[in-house]
Amino acid sequence: MTVPADLPAFEGCGIASALEAIGERWSFLILRGALNGMRHFEEFQASLGIARNILANRLAKLVANGILVRRTLETDRRKVEYRLTEKGEALLPVMLALRQWGEAYDANCHTMSSLLCDRRDGQPIRPIAILSHDGRALQLQDLLWKQKDEVMAD
Amino acid sequence: MTVPADLPAFEGCGIASALEAIGERWSFLILRGALNGMRHFEEFQASLGIARNILANRLAKLVANGILVRRTLETDRRKVEYRLTEKGEALLPVMLALRQWGEAYDANCHTMSSLLCDRRDGQPIRPIAILSHDGRALQLQDLLWKQKDEVMAD
Repeated sequence: MTVPADLPAFEGCGIASALEAIGERWSFLILRGALNGMRHFEEFQASLGIARNILANRLAKLVANGILVRRTLETDRRKVEYRLTEKGEALLPVMLALRQWGEAYDANCHTMSSLLCDRRDGQPIRPIAILSHDGRALQLQDLLWKQKDEVMAD
Repeated sequence: MTVPADLPAFEGCGIASALEAIGERWSFLILRGALNGMRHFEEFQASLGIARNILANRLAKLVANGILVRRTLETDRRKVEYRLTEKGEALLPVMLALRQWGEAYDANCHTMSSLLCDRRDGQPIRPIAILSHDGRALQLQDLLWKQKDEVMAD
């Protein structure tokens, strides 16, 4: 399969900007922890086995990028917690798409025992996919870049 | 908004495995280039401005991980090209989700002039989203982990 010749530049601003914020292995793993409900330095440290100085650096970067917010607990001023902002939570589709890809292509991942489900009816969610406006699943060769004004004029 | 307390461990095998393969900024950017149809060392080098030794290292890693395949051209044995495998193309939802997030949260990205469209009808694709089995968009707080056997028994 070849990339369509008329697929113009994959405009990378969004991607470059996302990578600026999270384009590093530890940052992804910290984010995964935060999506799991982890909030404290020690929790991240214990679960990831990451060096304390690197963890401190990456947490500070995630805070600086508005992905986590750092708060001192009212009940114990010595305690600090890191919570996901709305911007941080919005990375969930990225994380799920990564996870799904890792599972699909790494034979060692087949031991997974749990599925992400909809709280409302307990049914597993759909795989993350690229969908047309009317909901058909699309692949790379089905895609085409168009200028915004071209689309508006249609 | 808080993460539901009963959201158990975000099983990270898929994510850890994906990051093992692509968890590094340059690898993502090389992948973006490949999704744009780039195939030659010089194209990647010129477009990314990456040091040649780092580029060579990252390309070799992407090949070792089965994301790119390295071929010598039949027509000119001195020329080598790198093409996406099926596994590499399957990273498109990850890249689109990243791009969409970067665009949504980086004010500097609003100058984007092109949209990714369905080749069939020219309409823009839907945003990458987390969907329930019947197609409702879900957020973090709508999700719940269930054991596979629990789901099967439903």
